[in-house]
Amino acid sequence: MAYLQHYTPDMRFVKYTLCCLFLIAAIKLNAQQLTWSEVEPGIWKAVAGKPEAFDLLKTAGAVPYHAGLVEMGKTSFPLSQADITAKIIDGKTYLSFPLDHTEQLYGFGLNFQTVHQRGKILTLHVDNYAGKDDGHTHCPTPFYVSSKGYGVFINCARYIKVYAGTAVNRDSKTPPKIQDRNVDKDWKSKPYSDNVVMLVPAEGAEIYVFGGPTTMDAVRRYNLLNGGGCLPPRWGLGFTQRMQRLTDATGVAAEAKAFEDKGYPLDFIGLEPGWQSKSYPCTFEWDKTRFAEPKTLVQDMLKKGVRINLWTNPYISPESHIYKQILPYTGNYTVWNGLVPDISMPEARKIFFGELEKDKVDIGVSGYKMDEVDGGDNYLWPDVATFPSGHSAEQMRQTYGLMMQRYVTELYHNRNQRTYGLVRASNGGGAALPYVIYNDYYNHQDFITALINSGFAGVLWTPEVRASKTAEEWLRRFQSNIFSPMAMINAWASGTKPWTFPEVADQIKQLANLRMQMMPYWYSEFAKYHFQGIPPFRAMNLEPGFMGVDVPKDAPKKNINLEENPYEEASQKEIKDQYMAGENLLVAPMFTGQTTRTVILPKGKWYDFYTGKLAGDGEVITVTPGLDKIPVYVKDGGIIPMMPAMLHSPKAGDKVDIEVRYYGDKPGSYRLYDDDGETFNYEKGAYSFREIKVEKLNGKVKGSISNAIAGKPNTIGNVTFKMMTE
Amino acid sequence: MAYLQHYTPDMRFVKYTLCCLFLIAAIKLNAQQLTWSEVEPGIWKAVAGKPEAFDLLKTAGAVPYHAGLVEMGKTSFPLSQADITAKIIDGKTYLSFPLDHTEQLYGFGLNFQTVHQRGKILTLHVDNYAGKDDGHTHCPTPFYVSSKGYGVFINCARYIKVYAGTAVNRDSKTPPKIQDRNVDKDWKSKPYSDNVVMLVPAEGAEIYVFGGPTTMDAVRRYNLLNGGGCLPPRWGLGFTQRMQRLTDATGVAAEAKAFEDKGYPLDFIGLEPGWQSKSYPCTFEWDKTRFAEPKTLVQDMLKKGVRINLWTNPYISPESHIYKQILPYTGNYTVWNGLVPDISMPEARKIFFGELEKDKVDIGVSGYKMDEVDGGDNYLWPDVATFPSGHSAEQMRQTYGLMMQRYVTELYHNRNQRTYGLVRASNGGGAALPYVIYNDYYNHQDFITALINSGFAGVLWTPEVRASKTAEEWLRRFQSNIFSPMAMINAWASGTKPWTFPEVADQIKQLANLRMQMMPYWYSEFAKYHFQGIPPFRAMNLEPGFMGVDVPKDAPKKNINLEENPYEEASQKEIKDQYMAGENLLVAPMFTGQTTRTVILPKGKWYDFYTGKLAGDGEVITVTPGLDKIPVYVKDGGIIPMMPAMLHSPKAGDKVDIEVRYYGDKPGSYRLYDDDGETFNYEKGAYSFREIKVEKLNGKVKGSISNAIAGKPNTIGNVTFKMMTE
Repeated sequence: MAYLQHYTPDMRFVKYTLCCLFLIAAIKLNAQQLTWSEVEPGIWKAVAGKPEAFDLLKTAGAVPYHAGLVEMGKTSFPLSQADITAKIIDGKTYLSFPLDHTEQLYGFGLNFQTVHQRGKILTLHVDNYAGKDDGHTHCPTPFYVSSKGYGVFINCARYIKVYAGTAVNRDSKTPPKIQDRNVDKDWKSKPYSDNVVMLVPAEGAEIYVFGGPTTMDAVRRYNLLNGGGCLPPRWGLGFTQRMQRLTDATGVAAEAKAFEDKGYPLDFIGLEPGWQSKSYPCTFEWDKTRFAEPKTLVQDMLKKGVRINLWTNPYISPESHIYKQILPYTGNYTVWNGLVPDISMPEARKIFFGELEKDKVDIGVSGYKMDEVDGGDNYLWPDVATFPSGHSAEQMRQTYGLMMQRYVTELYHNRNQRTYGLVRASNGGGAALPYVIYNDYYNHQDFITALINSGFAGVLWTPEVRASKTAEEWLRRFQSNIFSPMAMINAWASGTKPWTFPEVADQIKQLANLRMQMMPYWYSEFAKYHFQGIPPFRAMNLEPGFMGVDVPKDAPKKNINLEENPYEEASQKEIKDQYMAGENLLVAPMFTGQTTRTVILPKGKWYDFYTGKLAGDGEVITVTPGLDKIPVYVKDGGIIPMMPAMLHSPKAGDKVDIEVRYYGDKPGSYRLYDDDGETFNYEKGAYSFREIKVEKLNGKVKGSISNAIAGKPNTIGNVTFKMMTE
Repeated sequence: MAYLQHYTPDMRFVKYTLCCLFLIAAIKLNAQQLTWSEVEPGIWKAVAGKPEAFDLLKTAGAVPYHAGLVEMGKTSFPLSQADITAKIIDGKTYLSFPLDHTEQLYGFGLNFQTVHQRGKILTLHVDNYAGKDDGHTHCPTPFYVSSKGYGVFINCARYIKVYAGTAVNRDSKTPPKIQDRNVDKDWKSKPYSDNVVMLVPAEGAEIYVFGGPTTMDAVRRYNLLNGGGCLPPRWGLGFTQRMQRLTDATGVAAEAKAFEDKGYPLDFIGLEPGWQSKSYPCTFEWDKTRFAEPKTLVQDMLKKGVRINLWTNPYISPESHIYKQILPYTGNYTVWNGLVPDISMPEARKIFFGELEKDKVDIGVSGYKMDEVDGGDNYLWPDVATFPSGHSAEQMRQTYGLMMQRYVTELYHNRNQRTYGLVRASNGGGAALPYVIYNDYYNHQDFITALINSGFAGVLWTPEVRASKTAEEWLRRFQSNIFSPMAMINAWASGTKPWTFPEVADQIKQLANLRMQMMPYWYSEFAKYHFQGIPPFRAMNLEPGFMGVDVPKDAPKKNINLEENPYEEASQKEIKDQYMAGENLLVAPMFTGQTTRTVILPKGKWYDFYTGKLAGDGEVITVTPGLDKIPVYVKDGGIIPMMPAMLHSPKAGDKVDIEVRYYGDKPGSYRLYDDDGETFNYEKGAYSFREIKVEKLNGKVKGSISNAIAGKPNTIGNVTFKMMTE
């Protein structure tokens, strides 16, 4: 005890008190000086306060795809470090990031109605989307990118409140103009703000900054930090039909036969709640009256090239045989009277995912559709729920979808088998997980906006087709759907089929066939999502030469004062009805009732996807495509590798002929991805990108493809070239 | 240091560790045993965790009206104490209160679209009302009452999340039935919940429980804990007109003269932003071009019996002369470029309220309209704002309106002069503050719902009249408005006058005169709000005999299963279009386009207010009142004291004749309140309730009034009696 003897108790008290006061002062009054370290090339991390161990990246199991980040090379820190501040006050983290007059912001998760996020106030909260872009959405990723070419990510599993360029700091160096509402006619209700501020309800958080120089670079780095985007199995990119909820084994077989007989492609069938003996809450057991021999059914279907996907939510019925065993590892509030397993605990995971594996994954089921892990509040566990892991209801809400994806994926990874499924909630960190988000909302226009925003949020989204009032709507929705991450009819309630509207049944078949023909393109684009972090479906704003194209001259103009409201101009150009699908395609969906629309073509020449004809050159065109066509354009020199239309995706080892379609005048090149299409062997190098090159010389196509690499899977048969532009 | 020598360091470590573990276990795993103490008769308080010093009651300056509570007498604790639980986890307070199958809940602040709150999920958050009853409102009082006759109040200035009978506890003693959605046709998406749970984002909170036996008793006790409801000056209950925002001194004088000339009553005029030299942000200084001699104007108007009320918001312009002085006492974010004074600090209050006093209160201004202290987020300080007091942005948001009311009232209290004004935000604890809430929303039906809910929230609300599309709408809105806490036309934007629609100008005048004639009634009812806690405007649900009256037999019925969804039945009876105005009046507003409506009369006989004729007896009646009349009914034996129509309210000391109107058959009695009408002398006993008694014998009224009490103010002149029912 010698070390204590220098002090009298009083002195110790004084020193202790002084120390406390100093700490309090440091916490209360000063913004923390953040220290940035480059954790991957072009990605910097700073730690504010004491971040929680249960964060998004760890919960998602994200492992950065280092090789992809190295390949992107070096870049410089994109912001003034002094202008990024963090304070910890009363257990909350206050963050501020700079903005300048010219920036537009994108991201903050899967928004449905807006692409531009500057000027928004959001509470990032996993939730069922309720018709308003206020941060409550299926995937409220705390990640944004700027038009200036950088990104910011907050690695925290809490409800983060964001003011994205609305708050005006009293001590701002670039303050807005003072006005007088009494007489100034241009008085602004929203003065200029030079910051993004966030309240993170935790004692600290990890902050990541992603360098550019382009906005796409920042997006790519974010996805690569997540481990790279997911790579679905080839069959995942085929066509899928979800059946009416109470169908039975006979119904499933009949459905597959009908597709076959009528000549519509089909890769997997989804079974809705009725496969379970009871649902809401769930038993996770096959209903023996509807599915007497599930293994036989699943295997028979597999032989026909059709996989089975199973709906479930995680809420456990007292009649499930795992109920008693899992009870100690569940939250203290139920959902539809079902237990909520605390899947952040290994004990719960062993039981719960064991149940999802047994008689399901084990018998050949290809994947899951994981429903209702998002909210809303009116059915989910309340924020006062507690979980035996000690994780709060809020943390569980923000991560449940992530964890469901991660641990189901692990079941498949353990057997070296890829899966591709559906989920209704995700969050930051989840880009590598092979799931597509869907929901109950059903606005076609907003579905396209979501598809655009998915590319900023590290998720995939399907504008699924459920039911339609008219053949026109059916066709228009289907057209968008085949240019999305999952081509799907979700007939759980309606029982609709692709041929439900006979007057457009042929067009639907053509579209479904087109989806299949484009598989080499889709698959290669997903490979780029995985290896390079490039989102396969994304905003025009990420396309070079887009931001410089003028909007139509007759578009309604607002009264713009750039000095005062610099982002007004950018907001006028908010484009929510066209998007990029992979490297070379610009998709401009048509909506019910529309016969004509404008399309903004980025700088350079663009060609009609179907005819190869020149559509325009960095300009706004007006098109009248007719009911049968969704306008799609290919960039100059664009290459689209196609395969023959097939009813089911090629199996591992099958050789498939490729027709390389080439558009425009410029020399083109394309990286065609190849692997076995079904396993994770690509993680160990069993893949290749083969280089396609095409030139048009004197009206003739001269094409080449690099040789297959010895020892790598090779599914590429004959390669032919087709010059689309005469 | 002897006390240390019993321990080796290791032993101390072990003991310390054990102690910590015990504490963690106690905090993490066990609900805190709450200890209830009866702090006033029929009011119990428990302390969960460590409540914050900055709470609602203290911030509002609430001092319980002990005498009123004593007068109410004793009652028993209304709930099972064992079923009320609190847990403190990670700095948050988790509360749970029991519910049984038969209860309906009311309250949770100033809701606009719903009266029944069972089944709601709310975040109690001071905010501009945005069209949805989700807890974001001008006054989100954390107080609810049950139809079973008790109330609960959480004394915490935080955003409290409430699940009012939606959450299902896994370990519930009264669990809902397990169902199977696959096949159960009556599967419920919202299973029965037996609790109200709340997440209070603070390390503790004071919890108050109010005894009954009736729901009204619980409401009264809550209001009396607040200090009793506010008692406005008599003139506050007269008519008020708010002028177009850029009017000047000449305009004000002309307005008053026009009212006088045309014979419309007028007690106070409101000036909107243009009285200030600059607004948004504000200078708080008279604009010299529009108001060269404000004192002369205010005093001239006072002589004519017309007072002046001034609009302001608290956001300080750099051009205000208090800017530099107050700068150190302001938040670090601005609102419309104006400083936000930290009025929780005495230093800021001295400067800020000093400015509101100087040349304003000092020259005879009667009160303020305090705007934009509610939100929304798109203009208010963000949740990341910090204030020099150390109070968080959240705490300031929840209390700013309360503090504005309190400290302006103090200016008047200091000069023993009552005020009555307007405010756009309040909260729990503020019932005694003499302000009426208003907003920008303008739905007539929802305004009535708000009036109903105001009686559960400890606030007043005015269904103000602003502009109307038609004479019918103008008249219908005006009719409701005169049966409310503040009879007001708010013409700041529209410039409308009572006579703007000539085709109904006479009816408007009659209504305005009726408002004045009823002043003795209104004033007495407000005195009961103050001395007895009875809200002057309130839900039918608080009226004895209402809940037992059947709804019309042709009302649409839902499929009710009481066992499963007990509150479904009650929700069918949610009545939002009629209310009680004081002890004896039932008001049933008509809305534009309506020519007929049903009115639910509570048990007993009810009489037409205008004719005295029997309207019905505990039944649902259908009425077709014509455009000129708003249906109003008087209960059997009901007494309405009236005075002659006057253009301005009586001055202190003026004697006024009273006509006692008497309805029905039952013997009636009424407590007529009297005081000087302008000062706070009533706080020192300078008031009286005089007892009016009336009987009808052989068709003749026999009425009496108790004698004036020597030494108390006496404004009552001749008293006559009028038998309304033949």
